[in-house]
Amino acid sequence: MPITPRAYKGMRDHLPEAMRLRRFITDTLIGVLERYGFEPLSTPIVEYSDTLEGKIGDEEKLLYRLKYGDDALTLRYDQTVPLARVVAQNEGKLTMPFKRYALGQSFRGERQARGRYREFWQLDADIVGVDSPIADAEIVAVVVEGLRAIGFTGAKVLLNHREILSGLARVAGVAENEAGGVYRAIDKLDKIGNDGVRNELLKSGVSAEAAERVLHFVGISGSVDEVLAEMESVLANDAPALAAVAALRTICAVLTSFGVPADSFTIAPSLARGLSYYTGCVFEAVLDSPPMGSLLGGGRYDNLVGMFSKRSLPTVGCAFGLERLFDLMLELNMGPRPERTIDAYVTLFASDFQNESLRLAGELRAAGLSVLTAYSPVKIANQFKEADRKGANFALVLGPDDLAAGVVQLKDLRTGEQQAVTRDAIVAAIKTAL
Amino acid sequence: MPITPRAYKGMRDHLPEAMRLRRFITDTLIGVLERYGFEPLSTPIVEYSDTLEGKIGDEEKLLYRLKYGDDALTLRYDQTVPLARVVAQNEGKLTMPFKRYALGQSFRGERQARGRYREFWQLDADIVGVDSPIADAEIVAVVVEGLRAIGFTGAKVLLNHREILSGLARVAGVAENEAGGVYRAIDKLDKIGNDGVRNELLKSGVSAEAAERVLHFVGISGSVDEVLAEMESVLANDAPALAAVAALRTICAVLTSFGVPADSFTIAPSLARGLSYYTGCVFEAVLDSPPMGSLLGGGRYDNLVGMFSKRSLPTVGCAFGLERLFDLMLELNMGPRPERTIDAYVTLFASDFQNESLRLAGELRAAGLSVLTAYSPVKIANQFKEADRKGANFALVLGPDDLAAGVVQLKDLRTGEQQAVTRDAIVAAIKTAL
Repeated sequence: MPITPRAYKGMRDHLPEAMRLRRFITDTLIGVLERYGFEPLSTPIVEYSDTLEGKIGDEEKLLYRLKYGDDALTLRYDQTVPLARVVAQNEGKLTMPFKRYALGQSFRGERQARGRYREFWQLDADIVGVDSPIADAEIVAVVVEGLRAIGFTGAKVLLNHREILSGLARVAGVAENEAGGVYRAIDKLDKIGNDGVRNELLKSGVSAEAAERVLHFVGISGSVDEVLAEMESVLANDAPALAAVAALRTICAVLTSFGVPADSFTIAPSLARGLSYYTGCVFEAVLDSPPMGSLLGGGRYDNLVGMFSKRSLPTVGCAFGLERLFDLMLELNMGPRPERTIDAYVTLFASDFQNESLRLAGELRAAGLSVLTAYSPVKIANQFKEADRKGANFALVLGPDDLAAGVVQLKDLRTGEQQAVTRDAIVAAIKTAL
Repeated sequence: MPITPRAYKGMRDHLPEAMRLRRFITDTLIGVLERYGFEPLSTPIVEYSDTLEGKIGDEEKLLYRLKYGDDALTLRYDQTVPLARVVAQNEGKLTMPFKRYALGQSFRGERQARGRYREFWQLDADIVGVDSPIADAEIVAVVVEGLRAIGFTGAKVLLNHREILSGLARVAGVAENEAGGVYRAIDKLDKIGNDGVRNELLKSGVSAEAAERVLHFVGISGSVDEVLAEMESVLANDAPALAAVAALRTICAVLTSFGVPADSFTIAPSLARGLSYYTGCVFEAVLDSPPMGSLLGGGRYDNLVGMFSKRSLPTVGCAFGLERLFDLMLELNMGPRPERTIDAYVTLFASDFQNESLRLAGELRAAGLSVLTAYSPVKIANQFKEADRKGANFALVLGPDDLAAGVVQLKDLRTGEQQAVTRDAIVAAIKTAL
């Protein structure tokens, strides 16, 4: 009795139609990354546990662990810690700054829910070894350009800076040990509104006066220049925070120089980003129209990549989550959706002339066309149906009369029209009509 | 104290230079597969253990097993069993014949040795749901064309058929329970020669007379037609074996029709292939010049893909092992090895003109060029060195004089020559010179 065939829960198969959309996404994004000079890197799925563990706090319970012989192993849960390992391990080989992208799966035993997968693909882009607002801007630029290139023309990147948030806590008079509560509260502004944030702030021990200052700050809006100027005036004499505002100003100027449209980025004083390892600018790409929330995020984290190294390796990066982008694009009916993915289907008229038909198929393939053939000479009408079902644009027939006349019957399956084309002209006829 | 950064033994990182060669291999092979109408499929790395286990005999001890919650899981060790699961699970969605390719990693805890990896990438191509010599020929054709396209012009495919081997055992008078010993012995002909095979045959209980008949058979050589004719005469009245010879004859005729060069395939009466699941034609691609042995193999296995299904799903397929191809191509210095992989490096003359240089970088990227920029305005000579080290073809400088004159200094790092190019003509100048 055979077992029931099923994928492991939380992981999914990608059938050809899905793969075509997924490859459109990754090919397009990689094209953008390569124009920015990012280079490919690939690391194993399996790492020694001591490489991966002790870095993500509570989420560790989601890790897939295994033993092989005496080795304690873990499936990677992101591509950032492996990057840190590789950089430390190849200090002589890799020249800094190192701009790498990595496309691959990671694994977390997430609870089952819509849009949550236990195997999830990411395309990471990071610039290692340089602390420069130009590098920050490059990462933001590839996010904007990448999202636009795959069709998210309404996407916008929200920018902020960790040092601005720290400065805000200081000038608002929030004790240092309450600052975490402030970040968590303001990050929810979109969801719970002003009153909600106020309640959270008060609950976490922030004074009423400080809470009002925080609320004023996160409510700052306007153009990039206006928001940054107002931030500067609120942050008064807090030097690190003012330096962070200056860094954001430079990032935005660089984005403008790069040709990134002004309406695709903005300063968001309430953006905190959950991950505690960020140390500099943070950002998040959101889709406002249609309102689909966060697409991806990233930022500068200057202490993570150097953790296996003696050198400090300031890094800025982002990760395009393929599962989220793919699901959204399916839902919004985005991306190329060709109805027909095969150029030509060569029928078999009869076993006797089989080799003539297969020679024709060989010629079409040599000309770069994607070609299917029938595998047996069943009724031609059924072969036409099969060609149509397989997504071919054209079906070709070489019967005895055609062979004698030196022609091929070319049926356009999109229109149903059929014509006799001279044998020598068949490649050109198909290429022209495609 | 940080841990020593290292990859898990038997698994390797692929740094950018390696990735470029690996991507050349996989992109080229996928291009060939798509011309033959194969479609992409991707399945998870992790499967329920009961899906994967009980299928590969002794090698099971090499599997990576893990538990998550109550689930017993195994990392896939090939892409064939997952194909069988997917086909059974999606019977309504997939129309047969299903031609799919799959590029991904599999995992086996191989003992450490040169050329053996515990994570290994494969590009599988299979045609599911049809038992036709045309399908067999398509798989052989993609092997020949694929290997030639990546540069193995001296590769040759050796063909045989399981039913011919069974028939040989019968006509040689070998008892059915000794047939396995015969296959194992003759498969080693290349390594141990005639005397070695004779010894192995006698040791495994084959009579002296039968051994001579087997040795005669595996010594048959000549053109495809000659070998098949001689096989037919030896196999006498063994109907299944004669049908197998006829199938090989058809496969070779189809290969010729497809335009596969005659010197790239041959019949090899001693080829048995280890995997017991083959049921029809078997083949192996070998590199004779330089003599590097087997590159990859494949064949027809009609009982495996149907194992999760109620339907019989005859299948023929092959798997390009990326690790072997990559290692060989490195060793033989094959594949494109561009010294320079970045089109242009835009220097920063001074912070004051930074935005002008970055605007130039943005324009070059918008024109499709791959561009790096400096991250700070250090000495120009050092920026040139950095551009050279990063593999840029050109370095560009925009100083105050250049800005005033409306030109860009364009330095060709391949030749050292430098010229002033009008700002508007810079994209065209680079594209022409690349």
